[in-house]
Amino acid sequence: MSDYQTYDLGDVRLQRGATLRACKLAYKTFGTLNPAKDNAIVYPTWYSGQHYDNEWLVGPGKALDPARYFIIIPNMLGNGLSSSPSNTPEPYDGPRFPQVTACDNVRAQHRLVTEKFGIRTLPLVTGWSMGALQTFHWGALYPDMVQRIAPFCGSAKCSRHNVVFLEGVKAALTADAAWNEGWYGSAKPARGLRAMARVYAGWGFSQAFYREELDLKTLGYSSLEDFLVSFWEGFFLPKDANNLLAMLWTWQNGDISDNELYRGDLKKALGAITAKAYVMPGATDLYFPPEDSQFEVAHMPNATFVPIPSIWGHFAGGPGTSPKDVDFVDQKLRDLLAR
Amino acid sequence: MSDYQTYDLGDVRLQRGATLRACKLAYKTFGTLNPAKDNAIVYPTWYSGQHYDNEWLVGPGKALDPARYFIIIPNMLGNGLSSSPSNTPEPYDGPRFPQVTACDNVRAQHRLVTEKFGIRTLPLVTGWSMGALQTFHWGALYPDMVQRIAPFCGSAKCSRHNVVFLEGVKAALTADAAWNEGWYGSAKPARGLRAMARVYAGWGFSQAFYREELDLKTLGYSSLEDFLVSFWEGFFLPKDANNLLAMLWTWQNGDISDNELYRGDLKKALGAITAKAYVMPGATDLYFPPEDSQFEVAHMPNATFVPIPSIWGHFAGGPGTSPKDVDFVDQKLRDLLAR
Repeated sequence: MSDYQTYDLGDVRLQRGATLRACKLAYKTFGTLNPAKDNAIVYPTWYSGQHYDNEWLVGPGKALDPARYFIIIPNMLGNGLSSSPSNTPEPYDGPRFPQVTACDNVRAQHRLVTEKFGIRTLPLVTGWSMGALQTFHWGALYPDMVQRIAPFCGSAKCSRHNVVFLEGVKAALTADAAWNEGWYGSAKPARGLRAMARVYAGWGFSQAFYREELDLKTLGYSSLEDFLVSFWEGFFLPKDANNLLAMLWTWQNGDISDNELYRGDLKKALGAITAKAYVMPGATDLYFPPEDSQFEVAHMPNATFVPIPSIWGHFAGGPGTSPKDVDFVDQKLRDLLAR
Repeated sequence: MSDYQTYDLGDVRLQRGATLRACKLAYKTFGTLNPAKDNAIVYPTWYSGQHYDNEWLVGPGKALDPARYFIIIPNMLGNGLSSSPSNTPEPYDGPRFPQVTACDNVRAQHRLVTEKFGIRTLPLVTGWSMGALQTFHWGALYPDMVQRIAPFCGSAKCSRHNVVFLEGVKAALTADAAWNEGWYGSAKPARGLRAMARVYAGWGFSQAFYREELDLKTLGYSSLEDFLVSFWEGFFLPKDANNLLAMLWTWQNGDISDNELYRGDLKKALGAITAKAYVMPGATDLYFPPEDSQFEVAHMPNATFVPIPSIWGHFAGGPGTSPKDVDFVDQKLRDLLAR
């Protein structure tokens, strides 16, 4: 009795050469596709998130109102619901799960949207973090189909610093001998997952967030250590290590120009995004700094730079953690949809 | 035939209750103490650094000119030369090495300076990073003795965000089962040390440093991965894990007010620093952000906020990695000494 559906993509040939056989795309929809099929919004998931982690931005009275729009949340490949290391049968299971790019993800989502629903135009694609990466890909790969994009707290190409941040996360997880090169079976590498969580904790929120003690005063944790254990370790411990590493690879290798359309020319790929765009970084995001968004906007023909004024760091954009920022993002989506 | 000397402190009672027996303080001096004994500068070391790692700021024609000043570089307790987990005999060896605060360090240094050399006044105390933490302590613990301080890329109290950053570093190192709670003997936890290095890599330099590819263009590494392995893993692999963890504890618990003089009142402790002070954060330092320095300066009676205009992140302040920033710090020390 799951709350989502699955689309069978069959055998999918991936950018890096492997074939993901009997590939499954899990998704959830809200609202109703209208007869003209022109009211659909695609809203991809983020690193380790699943469709229900996106729902904070969907609801009556919000910009993403199911009474008006048909909202599709596709689960990213590797996230445990769509085809992933944890649910793919031998021989491509676990650490043998193939390398999947953001481009592979968005092409799979495009098949869902066009083949399953017969949709030919999208008023909006939006997403947080790796969801923003996929949003940029939608704009660059399907410019004639996508009317608007609103990537928030994410980038069109993983920056070098972001690659390094993720190397630290990966190194912490894989320093645990229980990880065993991914062949950990039913005994998960708990120590590595906890270490990864602690590494992530310093990056997820800004210096000012911790300085102002919002972990205690707003989120209600009883101490800094309580926040590290309950919020951060509690977040990563239930997740599958191979899934996390598969998505981390997708993230590090994210690049809208790394395909046969743009052949590594990032400026060309950004220039091809004709959609009306609000590019919305968190003002204090430590791994998607606003400077990178400004570069993107400078090379996109119809883009506006809309920083989220917040000390919540990366979490200015989700997943609903900061109520004030939720309102900001929601209002900007409303503005963009009205344009 | 070492290039440093050692001062025997005897049995030292530490703030947290243990006694460090036959405590040794390793130090190196440059120049000559004048007959009036009023030309000495104390320049403590940083996290995992040893005295020779500080020498980039000392030399003929520099502000710290041995022809004019008697420069004392005391090695921090835990750094492998002064009393440390790696060189302390049973039963306080390895992971049993006691908790040592920055206050303990500076009190030990004060004994060296006064007992060994008979010095009663110091024209300057300066230091980078944890050296800055010790510098702040000199100003707060011995205000009548210290004429000037120049802490750069450091703080008077470890911020909560800095604590979290260090939790990530610690978790990565200790996720390696070879660490074995510190009882690793002769088989060092290489995987954990490498993981720790990769975590550190994202914090040590700024986003802009990596964006501008200064690892390649200025430092001359052949690729980002080469920088991670050669610079970062190469930096931490030779170091002793227990030493690193002992100093990390010292860092996390650094606080000039955590003693019987100020009883946790940070503003009072800052207010007691009557020395002329240049507080010099790196403009893009990710774990000692300039905002924390501004708070300190606001509560110090004779302090000036002097940010180092640099995209080198924490390494704007040392250890001589960025030539332009070396010149800036040197010039500011010259200015301060002339006041």
